[in-house]
Amino acid sequence: MSVSDILDGKLTEKEVEMKGWLVTKRSGGGVQFLMVRDGTGTIQATVHKDEVSKKVFSDADKLTQESSIKIKGLVKEDKRAPGGYEIRIKDLQIIHLAEPEYPLGKKEHGIDFLLGFRQLWVRSPRQVAILKVRAEIVKACRDFLDERGFTLTDSPILTPAAVEGVATLFEVPYFGDKAFLTQSGQLYVEATIAAFGKVYCFGPTFRAEKSKTPRHLTEFWMLEPEMAFYTFEDNLKLQEELVTYIVKTVLEKRKRELETLKRDLKPLEKVEPPFERISYTEAIEMLQKAKYPIQWGEDLGAPHERFISLKFEKPVFVHRYPAKVKAFYMQPDPKNPEVALCADLMAPEGYGEIIGGSERIHDLKLLEQRIEEFGLPKKAYEWYLDLRRYGSVPHSGFGLGLERTVMWICKLKHIRETIPFPRTITRIYP
Amino acid sequence: MSVSDILDGKLTEKEVEMKGWLVTKRSGGGVQFLMVRDGTGTIQATVHKDEVSKKVFSDADKLTQESSIKIKGLVKEDKRAPGGYEIRIKDLQIIHLAEPEYPLGKKEHGIDFLLGFRQLWVRSPRQVAILKVRAEIVKACRDFLDERGFTLTDSPILTPAAVEGVATLFEVPYFGDKAFLTQSGQLYVEATIAAFGKVYCFGPTFRAEKSKTPRHLTEFWMLEPEMAFYTFEDNLKLQEELVTYIVKTVLEKRKRELETLKRDLKPLEKVEPPFERISYTEAIEMLQKAKYPIQWGEDLGAPHERFISLKFEKPVFVHRYPAKVKAFYMQPDPKNPEVALCADLMAPEGYGEIIGGSERIHDLKLLEQRIEEFGLPKKAYEWYLDLRRYGSVPHSGFGLGLERTVMWICKLKHIRETIPFPRTITRIYP
Repeated sequence: MSVSDILDGKLTEKEVEMKGWLVTKRSGGGVQFLMVRDGTGTIQATVHKDEVSKKVFSDADKLTQESSIKIKGLVKEDKRAPGGYEIRIKDLQIIHLAEPEYPLGKKEHGIDFLLGFRQLWVRSPRQVAILKVRAEIVKACRDFLDERGFTLTDSPILTPAAVEGVATLFEVPYFGDKAFLTQSGQLYVEATIAAFGKVYCFGPTFRAEKSKTPRHLTEFWMLEPEMAFYTFEDNLKLQEELVTYIVKTVLEKRKRELETLKRDLKPLEKVEPPFERISYTEAIEMLQKAKYPIQWGEDLGAPHERFISLKFEKPVFVHRYPAKVKAFYMQPDPKNPEVALCADLMAPEGYGEIIGGSERIHDLKLLEQRIEEFGLPKKAYEWYLDLRRYGSVPHSGFGLGLERTVMWICKLKHIRETIPFPRTITRIYP
Repeated sequence: MSVSDILDGKLTEKEVEMKGWLVTKRSGGGVQFLMVRDGTGTIQATVHKDEVSKKVFSDADKLTQESSIKIKGLVKEDKRAPGGYEIRIKDLQIIHLAEPEYPLGKKEHGIDFLLGFRQLWVRSPRQVAILKVRAEIVKACRDFLDERGFTLTDSPILTPAAVEGVATLFEVPYFGDKAFLTQSGQLYVEATIAAFGKVYCFGPTFRAEKSKTPRHLTEFWMLEPEMAFYTFEDNLKLQEELVTYIVKTVLEKRKRELETLKRDLKPLEKVEPPFERISYTEAIEMLQKAKYPIQWGEDLGAPHERFISLKFEKPVFVHRYPAKVKAFYMQPDPKNPEVALCADLMAPEGYGEIIGGSERIHDLKLLEQRIEEFGLPKKAYEWYLDLRRYGSVPHSGFGLGLERTVMWICKLKHIRETIPFPRTITRIYP
């Protein structure tokens, strides 16, 4: 029997037995009010002095925050109780009496303190809500792609070379040799499209980013679909559909969690294809008009993305960046080879990039030239060049940052709450 | 339009257009027989000299193995064609003419050669079938748990300490500090049960195993469910149900792939609860009777697991190992504290361990004692000890090795084919 069943009204006037943790306790007039969490939800349970044994009443009185208990009682509808239901306790057993000073007790704590106690902080209603939304987004991503004939092909984590640039690589000693933690699974899903047509990987990726910002983790999860024969345009359409599906799924299935987070639903309800589209060149013009000191040819930074994102009510694609500021594998625009057939998707409400995607170079000569221009070690990419030697096809793909998507949908100020155990430049514990 | 639709008989006598790769080609009597793969399946396409233009016929003649092409034609039922259908080509365009010497051409290759060309080897029918089964198993695991109220909480990859023993840790320099690649996400899902009740993680894990065996990878994926309030017995029941669900799903949805692999289905069809159960002590007796030189107190090795696995038609739990050969966190059996409340699940047909699970220690003092006995750095486990300080509850969980499960279900001789890009002691390329 679970709290969620009680809150759904399925057990009213029934006797239930449940196990859980004490969230808070108050008492008055011979009644103790316990808020009890069981992992599916939180419910009020009341202990009335004249309805239980002395032992039960005194045990309830002893309970410290986060103690684990087993309770038995009758479910009552009660409008005064949070959630509208309560359990009227008949019996209570202490499973474990928590140590008296719960580190995350009532007073406010700084973020470093909370992160240091992440193993307990995850129990708080806000963190539970965020991580429930995260799990729902993961499921939505996988369901969306599985239903559309994509095959999951996991990319490796230990790799011989950089995907996104050598500056942010974690190096791992590997039996006398060295390996690098993957920055992106993309190159590997480009290999498996020739076997499966449409594929994806969804796993942890790593960037040794030296910057400490509210949008960067050193370890984060990325969904990376890759599609044979998809044009740049096909790619954008798929992204629109995926992001819309994710948002609609969360709105439908995680309404209670969005309420806990006090998330304004209106901006999310507007997410529907087609998304807005502007070129990088238009974005630069907008920024210059607003007196941002940026020149054509420079990459967009967080403040620029934020500015653009706030100009639109829906997610907006910024497309055709200068090839030089983007990764080596992006297909040049045939109409203007200075720009790449790429687009970043900016989430609205100031959030900025959640997806980066592009058509990929399929011509062997051009790809070899790019690897040279970018100063990458050709030998490490020979296997990748093989994909252009044997049945190369036009293809496209993208990477959706899971944590940035969670951050936007939950409307959080900082990315560190979007993952169970965040890793940043200053933190690998717990 | 996809090959799988054609093979399902949905497009018979219809004109189709498709893109794909040339698998093989032969000709005779003015007809060229092309086997074409599009990622959903492989189909025969015929080019009749008297039905197409000269250009189309000569283009078809030029095609090298793995060239990418676009074809148009009429779908015909034809019992002589593999799969029972063929496309009678009206038009053909070459997208990319593959270089003439395909590295994985007709002759047999050694395993090292194939692994060095994994980027192309994944295209072969056998590898496609294995990886399709793998993807189906991943989906089955997630669906099974999601439907039963589990919450996905991803465990971190970069960690401050060992889970399974310090001998097999990969160390990563981390901004002047050091981190380790996770060996198991278990300790972290033990933290999230207090927030969600039933949880799981499913991600890559790492062991710097120095042994080169057909059952070891340095990077492999593990499904790790963890359940608050589950007893040892509840844990075994869940494992039986999960493994049965996985096998039934693959039998139902991947019959074609199991045929490609020539997998005998009978042993799989027998997989149903309850599984067999023997104690470690009984296992030792069986082994000694069969003249294996093993003493009570030693861990079981691959040959022992193989022997036991072959004695049973269904998966078999070997339970209650000596606490000393197992991990520090396992709950002792109250009836005999020398053994742990743990069980390894051995797949049948000689495959051995695919799951390791146990009830966990929930008593703070005992856990502290174990950390000391195992010589682990207590400071790195303070956060984990907190779980026993604040609302500790009896709980259990297990880890299912994805690749070993794929190996068994596909009946493979070696684990290296079960993952898109295998990593072993001697291989991190491609």
